[in-house]
Amino acid sequence: MPHLPPAQEVALQFHQLCEHLMLPAVPANTVLGIEEGAGLPDAAFWWKERATCCKVRARRFGSQRQLVVVEPSSTAGVAVLKLKNLPVNSFSLEFLTELIINLEKLENDKTFRGIIITSDCPKAFSAGVDLREICGKNPAHYTEYWKVLQDLWLRLYLSNLVLISAINGPCAAGGCLIPLTSDYRILADNPKCLIGLNETRLGISAPFWFKDPLVNIIGHRASEHALQLGLLFPPAEALQVGIVDKVVPKDQVQSTALSVMTQWLAIPDHARQLTKNMIRKPTADLLVKHRDTDIQNFVSFISRDSIQKSLQMYLAKLKQNKD
Amino acid sequence: MPHLPPAQEVALQFHQLCEHLMLPAVPANTVLGIEEGAGLPDAAFWWKERATCCKVRARRFGSQRQLVVVEPSSTAGVAVLKLKNLPVNSFSLEFLTELIINLEKLENDKTFRGIIITSDCPKAFSAGVDLREICGKNPAHYTEYWKVLQDLWLRLYLSNLVLISAINGPCAAGGCLIPLTSDYRILADNPKCLIGLNETRLGISAPFWFKDPLVNIIGHRASEHALQLGLLFPPAEALQVGIVDKVVPKDQVQSTALSVMTQWLAIPDHARQLTKNMIRKPTADLLVKHRDTDIQNFVSFISRDSIQKSLQMYLAKLKQNKD
Amino acid sequence: MPHLPPAQEVALQFHQLCEHLMLPAVPANTVLGIEEGAGLPDAAFWWKERATCCKVRARRFGSQRQLVVVEPSSTAGVAVLKLKNLPVNSFSLEFLTELIINLEKLENDKTFRGIIITSDCPKAFSAGVDLREICGKNPAHYTEYWKVLQDLWLRLYLSNLVLISAINGPCAAGGCLIPLTSDYRILADNPKCLIGLNETRLGISAPFWFKDPLVNIIGHRASEHALQLGLLFPPAEALQVGIVDKVVPKDQVQSTALSVMTQWLAIPDHARQLTKNMIRKPTADLLVKHRDTDIQNFVSFISRDSIQKSLQMYLAKLKQNKD
Repeated sequence: MPHLPPAQEVALQFHQLCEHLMLPAVPANTVLGIEEGAGLPDAAFWWKERATCCKVRARRFGSQRQLVVVEPSSTAGVAVLKLKNLPVNSFSLEFLTELIINLEKLENDKTFRGIIITSDCPKAFSAGVDLREICGKNPAHYTEYWKVLQDLWLRLYLSNLVLISAINGPCAAGGCLIPLTSDYRILADNPKCLIGLNETRLGISAPFWFKDPLVNIIGHRASEHALQLGLLFPPAEALQVGIVDKVVPKDQVQSTALSVMTQWLAIPDHARQLTKNMIRKPTADLLVKHRDTDIQNFVSFISRDSIQKSLQMYLAKLKQNKD
Repeated sequence: MPHLPPAQEVALQFHQLCEHLMLPAVPANTVLGIEEGAGLPDAAFWWKERATCCKVRARRFGSQRQLVVVEPSSTAGVAVLKLKNLPVNSFSLEFLTELIINLEKLENDKTFRGIIITSDCPKAFSAGVDLREICGKNPAHYTEYWKVLQDLWLRLYLSNLVLISAINGPCAAGGCLIPLTSDYRILADNPKCLIGLNETRLGISAPFWFKDPLVNIIGHRASEHALQLGLLFPPAEALQVGIVDKVVPKDQVQSTALSVMTQWLAIPDHARQLTKNMIRKPTADLLVKHRDTDIQNFVSFISRDSIQKSLQMYLAKLKQNKD
Repeated sequence: MPHLPPAQEVALQFHQLCEHLMLPAVPANTVLGIEEGAGLPDAAFWWKERATCCKVRARRFGSQRQLVVVEPSSTAGVAVLKLKNLPVNSFSLEFLTELIINLEKLENDKTFRGIIITSDCPKAFSAGVDLREICGKNPAHYTEYWKVLQDLWLRLYLSNLVLISAINGPCAAGGCLIPLTSDYRILADNPKCLIGLNETRLGISAPFWFKDPLVNIIGHRASEHALQLGLLFPPAEALQVGIVDKVVPKDQVQSTALSVMTQWLAIPDHARQLTKNMIRKPTADLLVKHRDTDIQNFVSFISRDSIQKSLQMYLAKLKQNKD
């Protein structure tokens, strides 16, 4: 299983992805228009009574945008969680917080047994870490940010609910957090829908708690190659290496997710949850045990002058391209 | 490698398997007839001098039936061990005890280097745990039962002999213990010959010492899906996912096992045993280290009123179907 | 994935390999002729200033032969390291020492980012452990030998450089050390180019630090079979089981290695090195932690009368065939 497309092709794919993921090409107005128009009404049923903690957290960011939309599906017990942090679902602290709050609510609501997670941004499933959160801020901010990212990982990886990722757009680096922690992954059959942990291409290294589930999913050898080379797999290769479980036409991603979900819900919850916990706990325990050290490592790495300088130049270039 | 047949098909397969495995459809007379007729004479050579301990244990159950038949094969050094606890080789305490005694004898007999394990029951390779052993009894009984099951696992997984499973019938849940701990697995190419750990479908969870060898054999991702969904694989899928090493027509299962065995016996025993132990010891050590906790967990789980009630209803239904 | 060629074929392949690997069929004169003619001039650029330690170590063996030749490649930053311990690159203590010294130099030379390791012996990539080093010597010698072999493994497995094995000849038993610790493995498409850990066929067991990377590369189930049966895979099977990443015609092995290397060098070194270390450290730590015990086990095993006797007979037979 050698997953090494010719160098030129990789470079091209990467260039294209950068264009799609990193450049906030959609004007702010359009963004707000889409959000207020489509997302809110559908989710209204669900969002009636926000917990106090949610209000407090949301207020803190002072945002009126709804970054995560939860909708019922046609199948009883199944929610569809739509990521809607335009343009490319970058993990801002605000977005991560909204995401965790929504997952917490679903987890505690006995009427739900499974969640389909998908993107409501036309340009991407998720671009992962928002570089503005890890550039030009102070160590206390980096610490909080990384802790929240770990929280999201732990909540997803050990979720009692069935989680299915309906990956309807490109999914790179930290954006793989949700697919890697899901029970099942469906990818849209579109050449732009690349998926992979391409951190090394940006000069950084994925954390061990991204490496561990990747090894669990595609094995050790393929992970060595994928992680070191920062490979972004197009759909056919993604399926072959096993980083996704199914590839279907883009307009069938969500319906397929529902159909697969039905099979998972045929199993009694209690037995399935015990089994899931038994398989995943050893991997999760590694993060639980080492999370403080991991935060220290991250903060110390990201605070380096050389890394900050490199990130600033990268962000400046993005801003320039946008103007 | 997505191993999710359509929900309907799974349900049908499972229904069929339940019929085959759980309903003791063969009248008791026929059972005894088969046993006394075919099995005993062939094994007579072997069974001449039973160890005292065996007599004591056998006497304890007061059974005259021979549940495990050991025969020589056409290849020197190779025994064929036939499971014959009709109708479906359920793991009764008596059957497990007979099995362990026979394995112990073969292990200590220097004339044997390998064992082919197969079923002498037309309806199944093995249905696993006998529900009557874990329903309506007391904690002391559950403790003894689980300990004996662990003993069997440890004896097989670290056996110095070459073990080949000749799986000539359906093999579900605990019935996979023998294949999972064998060195090589051959499955009959028959749509009824489903194999898998379908515990979750019965509302329970396979123990970690079933999960660990499964992960070793088919990998982590496939195990997550197979265990959570309680998948029973038909032959072609079983081969593809790797839970068996070879699929052959039913009437060739045993001869193929002998042919494969010949290759394994071409290797000097001492070197092969050292190597096998080196690879398997870390997995076996996990059970050795945690077996007391595992017994406590099992006994506490199975003693719950809700679980007992559910098992009683299930057994009552089986009895009703039989009458 | 059953990798069990018919017993007869295995026997034949093994016989052929023994002929190719073990019998020093090339007269000593020819050997020296080749070495002095071809190897030295090319490597002259590189070898100008030997470190003092190297001189000391080399002097100790009193050899004038150059067993390891390092050449530049057509790609900047990439060295080609040629194994040249004729006839079959057996791991003599002298050869291992030369190899470690050269690797150390390349590792410390900032102009190099990657190494392609290949054989300059027409008959083999490597036959592994030189039996003369572990036969008829004293425990102190065995201790030193095994320690140096562990040193080589650790240096390669955690190397900051990109390592690609260009396997242009048969590669058996300990000869797999270099491929197993490389980042990428390319095998010549020639039926004589068998690769595998066939230790059990010689009556010994591969150490756990050969087993661990093999499991990482081809998985647990395939490793159980390959190690216990001492399988030597021909190219197509080697690719299928995954012990190599690519198979190409023999005359393209080195150029393909260079082409693959280019892809690896497209990644920033620092990020790739951090990532490689994160993935491999847990496996390497096992050897670091247990290396003393492992040495003791090896020395005690190899010092046994029965093992020594068997090795002496084997060597005598080889000498006889040669005469």
